[in-house]
Amino acid sequence: MPVDPRFHPATGPHSLARLAEVTGARMVGDGARLLHGVAALGAAGAGEVSFLDGRRHLAALGEAKAGAVVLAEDFLGSLPEGVAALVSPMPHLAFARIAALFHPGPERQPGIHPTAVVAPDAELGEGCEVGPHAVIGAGVKLGARCTIGAHVVIGPGCIFGDDCRLHPHASASHCIAGHRVTLHGGARVGNEGFGFTPTPEGRFFTIPQLGRVVLGDEVEIGANSCVDRGALDDTVIGPGTRLDNLVQIGHNVVTGRGCVIVSQVGISGSTVLGDYVTAAGQAGFAGHLKIGSKARIGAQAGVLSDIPDGMDMAGSPAMPVRDWLRASIHQRNIGARGGKPAAAQSGRTRPDKTD
Amino acid sequence: MPVDPRFHPATGPHSLARLAEVTGARMVGDGARLLHGVAALGAAGAGEVSFLDGRRHLAALGEAKAGAVVLAEDFLGSLPEGVAALVSPMPHLAFARIAALFHPGPERQPGIHPTAVVAPDAELGEGCEVGPHAVIGAGVKLGARCTIGAHVVIGPGCIFGDDCRLHPHASASHCIAGHRVTLHGGARVGNEGFGFTPTPEGRFFTIPQLGRVVLGDEVEIGANSCVDRGALDDTVIGPGTRLDNLVQIGHNVVTGRGCVIVSQVGISGSTVLGDYVTAAGQAGFAGHLKIGSKARIGAQAGVLSDIPDGMDMAGSPAMPVRDWLRASIHQRNIGARGGKPAAAQSGRTRPDKTD
Amino acid sequence: MPVDPRFHPATGPHSLARLAEVTGARMVGDGARLLHGVAALGAAGAGEVSFLDGRRHLAALGEAKAGAVVLAEDFLGSLPEGVAALVSPMPHLAFARIAALFHPGPERQPGIHPTAVVAPDAELGEGCEVGPHAVIGAGVKLGARCTIGAHVVIGPGCIFGDDCRLHPHASASHCIAGHRVTLHGGARVGNEGFGFTPTPEGRFFTIPQLGRVVLGDEVEIGANSCVDRGALDDTVIGPGTRLDNLVQIGHNVVTGRGCVIVSQVGISGSTVLGDYVTAAGQAGFAGHLKIGSKARIGAQAGVLSDIPDGMDMAGSPAMPVRDWLRASIHQRNIGARGGKPAAAQSGRTRPDKTD
Repeated sequence: MPVDPRFHPATGPHSLARLAEVTGARMVGDGARLLHGVAALGAAGAGEVSFLDGRRHLAALGEAKAGAVVLAEDFLGSLPEGVAALVSPMPHLAFARIAALFHPGPERQPGIHPTAVVAPDAELGEGCEVGPHAVIGAGVKLGARCTIGAHVVIGPGCIFGDDCRLHPHASASHCIAGHRVTLHGGARVGNEGFGFTPTPEGRFFTIPQLGRVVLGDEVEIGANSCVDRGALDDTVIGPGTRLDNLVQIGHNVVTGRGCVIVSQVGISGSTVLGDYVTAAGQAGFAGHLKIGSKARIGAQAGVLSDIPDGMDMAGSPAMPVRDWLRASIHQRNIGARGGKPAAAQSGRTRPDKTD
Repeated sequence: MPVDPRFHPATGPHSLARLAEVTGARMVGDGARLLHGVAALGAAGAGEVSFLDGRRHLAALGEAKAGAVVLAEDFLGSLPEGVAALVSPMPHLAFARIAALFHPGPERQPGIHPTAVVAPDAELGEGCEVGPHAVIGAGVKLGARCTIGAHVVIGPGCIFGDDCRLHPHASASHCIAGHRVTLHGGARVGNEGFGFTPTPEGRFFTIPQLGRVVLGDEVEIGANSCVDRGALDDTVIGPGTRLDNLVQIGHNVVTGRGCVIVSQVGISGSTVLGDYVTAAGQAGFAGHLKIGSKARIGAQAGVLSDIPDGMDMAGSPAMPVRDWLRASIHQRNIGARGGKPAAAQSGRTRPDKTD
Repeated sequence: MPVDPRFHPATGPHSLARLAEVTGARMVGDGARLLHGVAALGAAGAGEVSFLDGRRHLAALGEAKAGAVVLAEDFLGSLPEGVAALVSPMPHLAFARIAALFHPGPERQPGIHPTAVVAPDAELGEGCEVGPHAVIGAGVKLGARCTIGAHVVIGPGCIFGDDCRLHPHASASHCIAGHRVTLHGGARVGNEGFGFTPTPEGRFFTIPQLGRVVLGDEVEIGANSCVDRGALDDTVIGPGTRLDNLVQIGHNVVTGRGCVIVSQVGISGSTVLGDYVTAAGQAGFAGHLKIGSKARIGAQAGVLSDIPDGMDMAGSPAMPVRDWLRASIHQRNIGARGGKPAAAQSGRTRPDKTD
């Protein structure tokens, strides 16, 4: 289906040559051909650009009616006649750049909505947009061109760099953020961590949470996710790290650069992640762990111990992913046959495709 | 305990005959008897209606002091003398209709609160209520009799049908919704999906998320749940489907009609559910799966592969529920006895009742 | 690193004698020594107080350059010369009291922000602060000295006791709360529970949720957590119980006193917890269970049956923690070696330290 202009206003049309220029792709076809938008491979018509990312949709390529397709060199031979190509070693990235050219997103509307409450001493960089009912506290500093959505609350003293986007209902306190940081709707950054200690009378005494949250450049925090501020030291989310929705980050967690934390993951206090760590959906981490760079943690994994660089882990408690595959097959066999050996089924080694 | 009138204003009293009429139940007792409200079976007094749903509370029925009890034909014989009956093949439904008669919920107060910010070109159907500080964007269309709570934000271009209820702090963008749709407090509908692709420099480039969210008639989205909009195609929640709180729905997920998605479930991008699928609490689904109609997925299950129609699955990775029961008992036995056989305990086949 | 005064304004300096007095600790050193703040053990300088809680950081104690350290009697001998001591049997509590003395948190600013919408018949106790855009409904009663943050919504009829703090974007409805209750940012208290029943036509009919939420004194509800109101009876959170972020509490759940519910836990409807129950991160509870006092439930556990007082449970389905350790090691061995016995590894009994 075509992109709905009600929600995604478009630029264009753009020529094939322009798209090649924007993406650095090699053009195969008439550079003057005009394209009017983007669409999925099966849905794209003669005026639209689509893409092929790997073999998953290769069958659809033969049927393509798109005006142009972004693809890797290898698949060029399967392109139907009359369809132009943009050949790129990174077709998904090239397509994303084209999509962003056609649909650059809503235009920022600099200015402060009359219903917003902005502290007199807050400093807003040039070109900031502050939406209805937003609240910006004392001493806040925003860089240039920030977009502060409706109902956003920024607590006293927070700093955000240039080109940050805080979507409606996001809130931040005790936070120092870099450039191009995004908080999605309802994200909670800088809340008091879960820190308390019992008293002799059996009550709990709150341990003052005296740290901050530090967000590196290009960090994204997903909708309704929570990043607690540090207890004494800071909670730190490294540059480029992205959190999906409903993620929980405990106090004093530190992540490196470019980590990918999928929805509903929970990371307990003081755990430290290296660079480019991936944690799949609903995985959980105990506190005070060290997770090596480029480690990959499977969905629903329960991580209870340190993980070396580059390890792939899965299961709860987490184990190396190959072990987990073996253990899972064993479990499944126990379930299916009460644990009796099954020579005929010895080929069932992929838990994700055995049903 | 009686229903607190501070929170739930009541109509009534209503006669037994009136209740029989509203529910289609068969009346046993004096049709002129007046009832003043509803209560749980153990707590209901002579002026109140209660109900018995299945055998769970059968013992309490013999002690009932209620004015009337809604129940199935089978249990009529256990009703104490002096208690009237409303006999229904669906007692829970009949009781719910009676409860809704007594407590129809807060009355809509048509009009726009002076602190709300409504775009000049937004179209609101007759009888809509718009609460304090709500924000309604350009080009929004609301059907008749919608209730827009305090602090709700509806982004530009969204469409909602008649009789929708958006509770305080809910937000929607890029969304087309049917009639009688409910967003509970803090629900986030239409956020940017978790889509990005690496660049050669090791950064992430956001893939523009150019789809929408389509909500069928009578869809409910729970408190603080998130439904991301599609990447190119739409995310679709089928008619009557209900999401509990803190649920995550990834971009391009499609559900059929009447699915029940319990709290903290996560469904990854592009997974498709048939009709009347049930997913119990904290279950997780990988992306790009097909889940058959009437499949039932157990709590905390990890679904990694397609599921045929009508299958009951459990475990992580998920397997047929009977296999999971067997594997769980094996696990438990390994834990309890180091894996030694235990003839005396061979009857322990129900993991939910063995402690 | 020192506490950032931008976010955490400080009192002081305070003398060692004053700190001893506040904490009841035994002072070792010059009572006139002035301290200016608190810091972690490795970071504290001569003007700062730090603490040692157990053996974890004992090595750091020998290197300490702090002005004073709070510690237990046992470790006094390891303190470097020149560092003063505050000796306490509960060093974490003593340190927390000191931190709260130095950093008592933001000062309440009594009064109602002009953008707040407060119902004419709402009753606010003396010294309440009501922030920008807060909405307080008809008939609400707040005790003395409550702090109602920006964008908080309190529905009609709710009651809160003295010294409650509702952080930005929290919302409550159908709620009766005690003294010193805290709702963190985006917490949702009193939403409609997930109750509905099928109709003969295959639709769902909502069962009116006619109960309330009752929060005991000193309850804390974490950021973006959800506590649904009861269906007929109440949902009750006992005094002193603390919920972390993103927790789900279903309708009619009852907890005792002093329970600790860690992030992303889900408790299904009508389950009853005794006193001082601990549930670690991402654990899930089926509905209608009874969990005994002082039971401890492991991270990601799946609780499907009643648990006696004082039991430690783990795994999904949950089993006694010793059994779970044994079963986990078995699983891990199956994974690592295909189930062959491994005498050399028989000492690997701690799943959290075997990597």
